[in-house]
Amino acid sequence: MPEIGIYEAMSTLRAVRRLRPDPIPDDVLRRVLEAATWAPTGGNRQPWRIIAVKDSAKKERLGVLYREIWEAYSKPYAAGLAKLPDDVREKQERMIRAGDYLARNFEQSPVICIFCFAPEGMAITDAQLERPSVVGGGSVYPSVENLLLACRAEGLGCTLTTLLCEHEPAVKELLNIPDGWGTAAAIPIGYPLLRGHGPISRRPIEELAFTDSWGEPLG
Amino acid sequence: MPEIGIYEAMSTLRAVRRLRPDPIPDDVLRRVLEAATWAPTGGNRQPWRIIAVKDSAKKERLGVLYREIWEAYSKPYAAGLAKLPDDVREKQERMIRAGDYLARNFEQSPVICIFCFAPEGMAITDAQLERPSVVGGGSVYPSVENLLLACRAEGLGCTLTTLLCEHEPAVKELLNIPDGWGTAAAIPIGYPLLRGHGPISRRPIEELAFTDSWGEPLG
Repeated sequence: MPEIGIYEAMSTLRAVRRLRPDPIPDDVLRRVLEAATWAPTGGNRQPWRIIAVKDSAKKERLGVLYREIWEAYSKPYAAGLAKLPDDVREKQERMIRAGDYLARNFEQSPVICIFCFAPEGMAITDAQLERPSVVGGGSVYPSVENLLLACRAEGLGCTLTTLLCEHEPAVKELLNIPDGWGTAAAIPIGYPLLRGHGPISRRPIEELAFTDSWGEPLG
Repeated sequence: MPEIGIYEAMSTLRAVRRLRPDPIPDDVLRRVLEAATWAPTGGNRQPWRIIAVKDSAKKERLGVLYREIWEAYSKPYAAGLAKLPDDVREKQERMIRAGDYLARNFEQSPVICIFCFAPEGMAITDAQLERPSVVGGGSVYPSVENLLLACRAEGLGCTLTTLLCEHEPAVKELLNIPDGWGTAAAIPIGYPLLRGHGPISRRPIEELAFTDSWGEPLG
């Protein structure tokens, strides 16, 4: 089977939140994890690790923790949608329904990938600015994106979630994550229950990319 | 020309720091920028923008700012390498030489992509933890990785740098970036001076991925 093309994979990677519980073959999971290892990191330090959680009891506990935070986030978020134009609101409501499904069935995902990272030794060049720091994520989320794209290539559904960071101490205890390491993402992976990946909805490039100065149109 | 395969692109994406000044055709640059738009973001908000800097005077100023920080980082870093085993040290020294070249020639890159992001409205779920926050980067660096992979596909050299964040106020002023927006990365792009992309050096997957619990080998 020829590889899926890079542009095709990127342009059809959806957040797939409804997954079948069927297991993922070891060789397929391994290819997906290996794709994460290829991503660039600052100084090539690779200051991240993945724990691929398959154990039922551990996934169940992650599900309990996830649902707690999902409830706290999604209810006020849903309430805030009322004022949006119909078409935007409907899209957001669909996203929330899929999110509800994911939260209810979190532990049914055959694999939940927990991304860990070590801030020590990272050059966090925005640590002193008066805004939230993101630069540490520059050595973590490129690997996350590689993993998602590899899922797309393998026909596996997946979605990037970060809610579990709110319960980081409990997640660290559950998975024996050592001191000095944090968690950056939880990615449930499995074969799609419905259509899976496909067309995506994004803003046009003109709204997102400029030339030379903020707001100047592309050439 | 058929698209490059997704695994081939990811596994041969190098940090290419020696670039030719030759211009990038508009349609090629547009494909690279559009790839960034496809990446997932929290709630599909796409809270990032790219400014593709081509203007010589602006690139020159970015070069001056970049060199200042590169000097401050690379000198102590290079001094710290003396104690490393020969093979590791040599690799790191090669990286520093390439970084020196990039710093000296920063403004020669035909395009420097400045990634901006808006923290407002992001659900930064690790903001209250007693460690550096990274989660905001989860809605920015997947787009960065898409852009790098598209460069790979187009035969363009590129490298993810974050040093310029240290000079964020000056960069914002130069590029008219509004209040409420920060900068997350600066990516010089251009056709490679030497071999460009190719084999990469990463740790084996066994060191980076575990099953069910920290340190437990993959199945």
